[in-house]
Amino acid sequence: MGITIKDVAKAANVSPSTVSRVVKDSPRISQETKKRVRQAMRELGYHPNAMAQSLTSKNTGNIGIMLPRPNDEEFNHPFFPEALRGISAVLRIHDRDILLSPAGNEVEERRALQRMVLSGKVDGVVLLSSRISDELITWLYSINFPFVVIGNPRPLGLERVCWVDNDNIEIGRMITQYLIDKGYEDIGIITGDLRFIVNIDRLEGYKQAMEAAGKSTNRAYMAEADVWEDGGYNAMLRILRNGKPSAVVTVDDLFAIGAIRACRDRGYSIPYDIGVIGVNNIGVDQYLMPPLTSVEIYAYELGKSAAELLLKRIEIGPEYNDCVIIHGRLVERVSC
Amino acid sequence: MGITIKDVAKAANVSPSTVSRVVKDSPRISQETKKRVRQAMRELGYHPNAMAQSLTSKNTGNIGIMLPRPNDEEFNHPFFPEALRGISAVLRIHDRDILLSPAGNEVEERRALQRMVLSGKVDGVVLLSSRISDELITWLYSINFPFVVIGNPRPLGLERVCWVDNDNIEIGRMITQYLIDKGYEDIGIITGDLRFIVNIDRLEGYKQAMEAAGKSTNRAYMAEADVWEDGGYNAMLRILRNGKPSAVVTVDDLFAIGAIRACRDRGYSIPYDIGVIGVNNIGVDQYLMPPLTSVEIYAYELGKSAAELLLKRIEIGPEYNDCVIIHGRLVERVSC
Repeated sequence: MGITIKDVAKAANVSPSTVSRVVKDSPRISQETKKRVRQAMRELGYHPNAMAQSLTSKNTGNIGIMLPRPNDEEFNHPFFPEALRGISAVLRIHDRDILLSPAGNEVEERRALQRMVLSGKVDGVVLLSSRISDELITWLYSINFPFVVIGNPRPLGLERVCWVDNDNIEIGRMITQYLIDKGYEDIGIITGDLRFIVNIDRLEGYKQAMEAAGKSTNRAYMAEADVWEDGGYNAMLRILRNGKPSAVVTVDDLFAIGAIRACRDRGYSIPYDIGVIGVNNIGVDQYLMPPLTSVEIYAYELGKSAAELLLKRIEIGPEYNDCVIIHGRLVERVSC
Repeated sequence: MGITIKDVAKAANVSPSTVSRVVKDSPRISQETKKRVRQAMRELGYHPNAMAQSLTSKNTGNIGIMLPRPNDEEFNHPFFPEALRGISAVLRIHDRDILLSPAGNEVEERRALQRMVLSGKVDGVVLLSSRISDELITWLYSINFPFVVIGNPRPLGLERVCWVDNDNIEIGRMITQYLIDKGYEDIGIITGDLRFIVNIDRLEGYKQAMEAAGKSTNRAYMAEADVWEDGGYNAMLRILRNGKPSAVVTVDDLFAIGAIRACRDRGYSIPYDIGVIGVNNIGVDQYLMPPLTSVEIYAYELGKSAAELLLKRIEIGPEYNDCVIIHGRLVERVSC
């Protein structure tokens, strides 16, 4: 409250226009200067904002949501509506609305977030994922704007962040251990994009379980899938070109659905020739052929907790930070 | 532009505070007065708005989306993300954001729409459905606020409305005719909530096809389903209590998925004992057991066209109105 751009400029020993350029993340300002200015902003609790009035009084009434990646790929994943449902359940009690910014690529995504924040359209932001080098998160953090991450922002090394996540290492371990306990020998894995921490964590869990069981992981049976069913399909075909694993861990049900189709196209029967397990327990799992064994990750609860933390962060201020870990639950069906 | 609440009050021969109450749809004002005031607003082109400035200059940059019913039921239907994807594809070119208002019931829904519109948070609204007596649509129409309906608002009898829809009577006829052509005799139907025009239209198409083929419709084989898989499941059980139709038309794939489960639970095999057909061609149809014959309704295109019409309506003004009809395409699989 009451802190102006001039105060920040003075503290950082730069001109007000330099502060303004740092807020806009202009490439014309050196990394060193940016760092110094952002530190001053954080220390002073400065909210850079074109409509500072509405922001500091925290009453745009809107919460922004940033999708994990360009909308076209993300809207169709069942995680999105489930998380949205959870977020909504909290926001509607507080008469708050949700702002979504359509974005087709990472440049647009960044511009969309800046539009939301710098023109004072939202009081806070929910990010539906965390990446290994997440410019959106570091930017929001640097300007001290309220946000919460659904995902573990650990690799970003930030001190005080609100976040909510499954224990994804545990989930990776759980599904791999389940296949090991079932007696499967050569267990492969289909991971997702390894810039996302959720995928890194589930892969790590797979490796830990394999190692603990004294099994060696086989690079030939590991593949990174592009988005969804088709990604899983192609990843499985790549694995099958290298040989036939007895089972495959997939880090997402949509990958599992594609992988099952690939196995079938190559003449393999599920679960008899190859076992397949997924994660997410999406609504249709039980209706698939064969019904898919998966892990319930409680996307609704993730959304709900995220919204609750964010509202507290907005209410209490930058000194508030907390995290919630939600454990997965294995749902046995017949795909492995 | 420039029209004030006083001008409206004068034209309608009431006090300005009465106009204000009409805008808020206060129960203290008689229907007759409301009608007169709203007519005056329309004739003068008055935009009632707490932030009239931003509205008349049309630059909140936000488009509101109203779901067909309370969020909890709707977010999880695959139509929502597909339509949202289409809407986004248009809005991102125009740097516009999407505003969603969480609502748990019809009272909240109405309040949410009023909050969006009356506090100047959006430049226009996309309604994702039309009901037979749709207060949201008639309210937006009465205050002359830009909106577009995905659905046919025909029964509301409004003169100039922008809307986009499938030809749902044709779709109902198409899927029923398909079953008739396959040689099915006693064809039942599972409809959705008959307050929604989409469901009325698909039921009408079913009746037309049955009549044209000289078949009588059997009330015992007609059921209205509640929301989604479970609704379809329960509706099918009700039908099976009355006898065994040879096939069932369902107006939505999620109903079909539930109906198939009900048939199976009662020991019937699909498609051998009972044929089932759906509408929507949702992503998982091909992976179901058995793969579901359905109708592609192009939800993405519906969303895209809706956003395009709305932007034109905002740009051009109340004299602009248009509609787009998108035809369905039968996708043959093996469920009938």
